[in-house]
Amino acid sequence: MPTLYDNLSSGNAYKVRLVLHRLDIPHHRIDLDIDRGETRTPEFLAKNPNGRVPALELEDGTVLAESNAIIHYLAEGTPLIPQGRLERARMLQWMFFEQYSHEPHVAVARFILHHLPADHPRRAELPMRHERGHQALAVMETHLRDRAFFAAGRFTLADVALYAYTHVADEGGFDLAPYPRIRAWLTRVAAEPRHIPITRTTGS
Amino acid sequence: MPTLYDNLSSGNAYKVRLVLHRLDIPHHRIDLDIDRGETRTPEFLAKNPNGRVPALELEDGTVLAESNAIIHYLAEGTPLIPQGRLERARMLQWMFFEQYSHEPHVAVARFILHHLPADHPRRAELPMRHERGHQALAVMETHLRDRAFFAAGRFTLADVALYAYTHVADEGGFDLAPYPRIRAWLTRVAAEPRHIPITRTTGS
Repeated sequence: MPTLYDNLSSGNAYKVRLVLHRLDIPHHRIDLDIDRGETRTPEFLAKNPNGRVPALELEDGTVLAESNAIIHYLAEGTPLIPQGRLERARMLQWMFFEQYSHEPHVAVARFILHHLPADHPRRAELPMRHERGHQALAVMETHLRDRAFFAAGRFTLADVALYAYTHVADEGGFDLAPYPRIRAWLTRVAAEPRHIPITRTTGS
Repeated sequence: MPTLYDNLSSGNAYKVRLVLHRLDIPHHRIDLDIDRGETRTPEFLAKNPNGRVPALELEDGTVLAESNAIIHYLAEGTPLIPQGRLERARMLQWMFFEQYSHEPHVAVARFILHHLPADHPRRAELPMRHERGHQALAVMETHLRDRAFFAAGRFTLADVALYAYTHVADEGGFDLAPYPRIRAWLTRVAAEPRHIPITRTTGS
C-alpha cells in the first residue's frame, strides 16, 4: 500500500488525507515536522527534491509530489474527476487557481501567524497576503453566485483543493463574513460523505 | 473556432500559442495590453473574473482560464498527455510545480525587470525571487539528471509549462550557466516539431 508523507497542520497534506479517506484507500502515513526541518533532510530530499509534504510513495518506491497531482492520481476513474473534457479542464482551472492565486496568500498568512515567531520579519508580508487572499476569495464568491460547487455541478477535486485552506482561512486572519456563498459552500463540503476534519489522521 | 485572449510577452499565454500551433488548431487571437490594464476592464473581467491572460473563449461563449488547464483541455487525446495514470500524474506534478515554485519567481523577476519602472518598490523583491527561482531551477536540473523530458520519457505538457519561462529566464536576471541539463533540455524542446518562438503569433 502507498505511504503518505504527511503533516497534520498542512492543508495541502489534508487534501490527500481527505481523498484517501473518501475513497477508502488503505495506506501508511508518516508525519514529518516541518518546523524541525524534517522535510529538508537528505533522506526526504532523495524522495522529493522539492522538500515538501505531501508526497506519496507507491509500493514500487515511486514518489509523487504536489498535492493536486497526488489527489488527481488517487481519484482517476472515480466521480471526484468529471468525465467530460470541458468539466475536467474546469476542475483543473480551479486547482491551478488554488495553487497560484489562493494558497500563496491564504495559506502563507496562516503559516506566518502560526509557525513563525511574533517578531519574525515575514510578518511584514501580511498586508499584501491579506489583500491578495481577499482578491482570490472574491473570485470564488463570484463563481459560486449560481453554482453549488466549483466544477461539473458536484463535489470534485476542485472543491477538495479550495476547501483545504479556505475552511481555516480565519487562522490566517481572514474574516469570511463578507463571503456568504463561500460559507454556504464550506458547509456543503463538510456535509459530503466520509468527510474528515483537517487534524484527523486516517488509515493504518 | 476558439478565441485566445493573448499577450505576446506572457510566457503563460505562449504555452497556449505553442500547443495551438503544435496541434494545428484553428483559432482567433486577441492581444490584450497588460500594462494598459486591458485585462482588468469590466468586459474582460466578465469573461475571466481573475483578470488574467491567457483565457480561451470557446464557440459557445464558455471561457476557460489558467494556462495549464487550457493546454490540458486542448491536448486531451493527443500524445502531449501521457496515457498511463502514473505518467499523467507525473506530468501534472511538474505543471503544479511550475505554477507554485517556478513561475512566481522566474516569471515575476522578468515582469519586475521588464514591465515596471527602474525605481519601482517591487525591485526590492528581486533577491528573494532570484533565490527561490534558483531553487526551482536546481530541482529541475536534478530531475533531468537521467531524463530527456519531465514526464513519460517524451515531450508532454510538463515541458510546455516549464519551457515557457525557463527559456527566457535570462530576461529575469537568471544565468543558466550552472544548469547544463536544463540548457540541453531547452535545445531539445526547441527542436520539437512545429515549435514556435515566444513572440510569434499563430493562426488566423
